[in-house]
Amino acid sequence: MANPEILSLLLQCHGRFVSGQEMATALGVSRTSIWKEVNSLRSRGFIIEASSRKGYLLTGCPDILDPTIVRFGLNTERMGREILCYQEVASTNALAREIAETAIDGTVVLSEEQTVGRGRMDRGWSSPPGGIWMSLILKPRIHPMLAPRINICAGIALATSIKDLFGLNARIKWPNDILIRDRKVSGILTEVGADMDRLRYAIVGWGINANVDIEALHPDWNATSLQAELGHSVDRSELIRSILEEMEGFTRDLTDEFRPVLDRWRSLSATLGRDVRIITHEGDIIGRAVDVDDKGALLTELPSGEMRQIMAGDCIHLRGLDCFLDGRER
Amino acid sequence: MANPEILSLLLQCHGRFVSGQEMATALGVSRTSIWKEVNSLRSRGFIIEASSRKGYLLTGCPDILDPTIVRFGLNTERMGREILCYQEVASTNALAREIAETAIDGTVVLSEEQTVGRGRMDRGWSSPPGGIWMSLILKPRIHPMLAPRINICAGIALATSIKDLFGLNARIKWPNDILIRDRKVSGILTEVGADMDRLRYAIVGWGINANVDIEALHPDWNATSLQAELGHSVDRSELIRSILEEMEGFTRDLTDEFRPVLDRWRSLSATLGRDVRIITHEGDIIGRAVDVDDKGALLTELPSGEMRQIMAGDCIHLRGLDCFLDGRER
Repeated sequence: MANPEILSLLLQCHGRFVSGQEMATALGVSRTSIWKEVNSLRSRGFIIEASSRKGYLLTGCPDILDPTIVRFGLNTERMGREILCYQEVASTNALAREIAETAIDGTVVLSEEQTVGRGRMDRGWSSPPGGIWMSLILKPRIHPMLAPRINICAGIALATSIKDLFGLNARIKWPNDILIRDRKVSGILTEVGADMDRLRYAIVGWGINANVDIEALHPDWNATSLQAELGHSVDRSELIRSILEEMEGFTRDLTDEFRPVLDRWRSLSATLGRDVRIITHEGDIIGRAVDVDDKGALLTELPSGEMRQIMAGDCIHLRGLDCFLDGRER
Repeated sequence: MANPEILSLLLQCHGRFVSGQEMATALGVSRTSIWKEVNSLRSRGFIIEASSRKGYLLTGCPDILDPTIVRFGLNTERMGREILCYQEVASTNALAREIAETAIDGTVVLSEEQTVGRGRMDRGWSSPPGGIWMSLILKPRIHPMLAPRINICAGIALATSIKDLFGLNARIKWPNDILIRDRKVSGILTEVGADMDRLRYAIVGWGINANVDIEALHPDWNATSLQAELGHSVDRSELIRSILEEMEGFTRDLTDEFRPVLDRWRSLSATLGRDVRIITHEGDIIGRAVDVDDKGALLTELPSGEMRQIMAGDCIHLRGLDCFLDGRER
């Protein structure tokens, strides 16, 4: 782990040299300590120019997850007040769950790899290096009935960030996958701990195929990565900051009128207006996805015209098949 | 901890002597081992008669919480498959939370005392010896939206058990206190761990003033105990068995039609039909409690005639005061 203060100073002096003496004075350490720490940062992949006259200049950061880098330029009050970065964990959500009772609101857990990444319904999830495996612990004072709103915000925050930063047309597939060109670039798993009348915590877990080789992902999944879509790697820390900033805005008051948020979800949806097959515990439902409500349920019009509120299930987007005609003719 | 097999055998032979040889053969140990274990049970307060001709006879059990005693005569399939008894824990709900992810459905956690008992809204809860401080871990495959049903069942299960076993008129005060003669004999704290589309676990915590000296309870609370109401102590294990049996019946299929359960709640309610003041985050609400819904919300008629669905709050039963008149006249 790099000395966060020296790294922070070098980041703040972006574009200009800072002398070893200036750093030593600012941090209350010797110039030799500075020199040692600079070398330690270099060994982690940071590119730092040194000039005996002018001092040190940070010219490049490695593609690593580091609290100091993530926090640098992060424009939030609550999100990311605590940022924990790991090389490898079983799953960031599991780790977040362990610390959730005592963690502060806005705590972020990041890991370069997950050994037991988990998707919805306890399915496996590939978590190779280069991805963003991130969990955010939130402790809003709300009734647990409002928790689905956090999950809805999590999808919007990521899709919006990908659009804004990289210009990719990211869309939300119900309930909460993020697609680019109909391929999955991220899954979101939100968990809660709650009393009956009070949310104790929510944990939003994003698994984002950022700088991931598509070959490293599960071959059965129709997956893509930001790197594959763009043809180059992305600044993962920048994406993380953007997600946290979006989440802070969205979750400021979850008891507020939720219609504007739902409107944003609708505008980003890959599912609404499409014919879908939804696999539920009670069997398959085929119909047209019409709307989403503030519980995150999908409102689906069956071929009979009946409207169905679907709380949970796996959604398959049907292609080139009009289920309405289909339903009538067979 | 007593040897559960020897205790179990003595319990099964209730009312008749069982020879040391018979026990030794049944359990595959020596007669000396049996003799040692019998003495060990005696040192824990079990009263065991011994006759050199006839063998051993259990004539009395101490008032302790022991898995073998609780399980003896327990008529359930799921509830109590695992029973963990402690002398002292911080809180049985906290311990249950720690083991919930790996625990089996129906696991029970019991403790003679709690050092940090917790009520609703993180309030303190007195947990002196003689009470029943119990948590039940449930893992039904349901949507988290249905979790409030478990909480509703927990109140009915306890009130019904107290009525049936002891003939006391136990009633449910919304949201989930159990009252006898308008004094609190138990509080219930239900917690959940959930994904957005699946309950991972629910933990029902009952704090029951069973054989508790009223003086040992918090003086500010209008509390009573079963012992105080009856004038004698109760068999705590019998009450625990009854609660578990009731819970098994109620929670067999939580997706079923819930109206019959709500009807039972209504018939046991101390709150419905009364004028109440409910302290909520958004301020106090005064009105008449009219009904409860399957989310556990209290439907309250305001003096204006408006109906209000109250999801969470502290309820005060008003006495000798007609809030409707009151509301109109001031």
